[in-house]
Amino acid sequence: MASNTTPDLSRGRTVAIVGATGAVGEVLLRVLEERAFPVGELRALASERSAGTTVRFRGRELPVEVAKPAAFDGADLVFFAATGALSKELAPEVAKRGGIAIDKSNTWRMDPQVPLVIPEVNGAAVEKHQGIIANPNCTTTPFVMALGALRGVAKLKSAVVTTLQSVTGAGLPGLEELDRQLHAVAAGQPVPAPKQFAAQIVNNVVPLCETFTDNGYSTEEMKLLFETRKILDDPGFNVAMTCVRVPVPVGHSASVLLETAPALTPEAARAALAAFPGVRVMDDPKHNVFPTPADGAGSDDILVGRIRRDLTSDRLWLWTVGDNLRKGAATNAVQIAEELMRRGLR
Amino acid sequence: MASNTTPDLSRGRTVAIVGATGAVGEVLLRVLEERAFPVGELRALASERSAGTTVRFRGRELPVEVAKPAAFDGADLVFFAATGALSKELAPEVAKRGGIAIDKSNTWRMDPQVPLVIPEVNGAAVEKHQGIIANPNCTTTPFVMALGALRGVAKLKSAVVTTLQSVTGAGLPGLEELDRQLHAVAAGQPVPAPKQFAAQIVNNVVPLCETFTDNGYSTEEMKLLFETRKILDDPGFNVAMTCVRVPVPVGHSASVLLETAPALTPEAARAALAAFPGVRVMDDPKHNVFPTPADGAGSDDILVGRIRRDLTSDRLWLWTVGDNLRKGAATNAVQIAEELMRRGLR
Repeated sequence: MASNTTPDLSRGRTVAIVGATGAVGEVLLRVLEERAFPVGELRALASERSAGTTVRFRGRELPVEVAKPAAFDGADLVFFAATGALSKELAPEVAKRGGIAIDKSNTWRMDPQVPLVIPEVNGAAVEKHQGIIANPNCTTTPFVMALGALRGVAKLKSAVVTTLQSVTGAGLPGLEELDRQLHAVAAGQPVPAPKQFAAQIVNNVVPLCETFTDNGYSTEEMKLLFETRKILDDPGFNVAMTCVRVPVPVGHSASVLLETAPALTPEAARAALAAFPGVRVMDDPKHNVFPTPADGAGSDDILVGRIRRDLTSDRLWLWTVGDNLRKGAATNAVQIAEELMRRGLR
Repeated sequence: MASNTTPDLSRGRTVAIVGATGAVGEVLLRVLEERAFPVGELRALASERSAGTTVRFRGRELPVEVAKPAAFDGADLVFFAATGALSKELAPEVAKRGGIAIDKSNTWRMDPQVPLVIPEVNGAAVEKHQGIIANPNCTTTPFVMALGALRGVAKLKSAVVTTLQSVTGAGLPGLEELDRQLHAVAAGQPVPAPKQFAAQIVNNVVPLCETFTDNGYSTEEMKLLFETRKILDDPGFNVAMTCVRVPVPVGHSASVLLETAPALTPEAARAALAAFPGVRVMDDPKHNVFPTPADGAGSDDILVGRIRRDLTSDRLWLWTVGDNLRKGAATNAVQIAEELMRRGLR
């Protein structure tokens, strides 16, 4: 579907957002503004529950309408930032009408017909789209950004990963739950029973993100393995992983032990990471410099620190932080749209 | 120094606590009460800053006196739960007077003359004491408890560990800092600048416990490697590790990927862990059962869950939780004292 015409990057596109009132939807609106994305018309859509409210875009209040197939008539690009069920039902309706759905949910990611894209890592994959492009899970993206930088200098063999994931990985309800529990603790009141997470999240960490599958791994853990292999186009890359929810509003961290061939020195890894677009190295232990979620929240960059050789093998330790709502979701989705435009595909 | 006489477990020992007003000192008092430890006389000691206050033991208020060598005259057992500097200066004074110092600080742990003891794992090591016995770091203990259980059924080869450590690993000042910051967030006020930790701890995670050494690892990380090898008496056991501070009041968690020979099935591991004294298995993903710090705080048990085979190798994942003030500190210290008594060494 590559085009030979010079892409018109300034023409105003007709853009729709399904889930405009959610945590990712709100950030999508901000990212479209910040990046001066060529929006001609914006349609804010949501489930029936949220329709009737408004969202703010470029200084104007837009009414939120019910996400229905007819809302996609004439749309160039439709960002899905709502439930998987809504994506499953509606993304094909976008494709059917000639638009392109860029989906944040888990629904389409492993579909062989659907590219799963981090533009800096596998941007060319958008060429094969058939009307739907999937945005990786917010945990996969920062991890694969670091891997994308390093596979330029060594073959990736395997990784052992423990993630520390923020509550907005579960959207605004996750944030509200942390907030409610934090206020209870501060007031010396009993902590309200958990609803979004399987255990209390304030003053605690919970070694379960989403739900368990039959093999004893969480859905989140399974995504990290399969999505990473698909984006890297490397079915032999092994990821051993445990995903943990932590009481952090925004920003997913990961502790990563990486095996490469040949082994990478910290210096070589630092240089490759620093040179990679969208990655920022924060790594100076002598001055207590390392990234935390508080540093990563609000930034489009993936932050990497604690880069060092394992003491007992030639593997490399990394500590990555990424804003799960930005590069982990909204920013990456907008970058996918930009990649499509740059390639004249939209 | 083994004795052939029948140990007298009921004789009241003269016990001193250096650091009786600290986070661990307070829990030591409670653990001595709970376990009906045969205390004849208790001396509550502290640095000059804390002397003059009182602590409660068995319903009575005891004055806190300055920790000076003369305070150890006639003491059977002296628990050190204060700074490393105080242990360095005063533990030899205990030994010189014929008592036994049980030290929580890092000062003596790697001294070849000093046993480093977790009674369930290497209790016999107390036999070689020369007046000082070291209590492992609060991160090492839960990890080695799990290893101690599993080395009964397979040879331990290596582990990859990411810890999620509570603020009381840095004592009461750590707890006060989290509390202060949490109240600021709840009140919508700016978070006070960090003092105990290198970055804000509320709503954040910090990939640094204690301070960095010249090799880019933290002191806490180095302890985990060297202490584990010493306790297991296995200099070939490799530990790759990253230690992270999390906004949890009490309870250190660890995500552990363990290589054994032969490979262990989750069932075999679960059985070995469940049979080991001081370890409790909480592992039933079908019913969302796994341990969190909130479960472990206040318990003397090490809790283990998320026991499963790695999907890409024959290694085993574990998730461990331990109360860093109890089994990670006070309880283990009292158990060392009990081990000495059982062996007629005191």
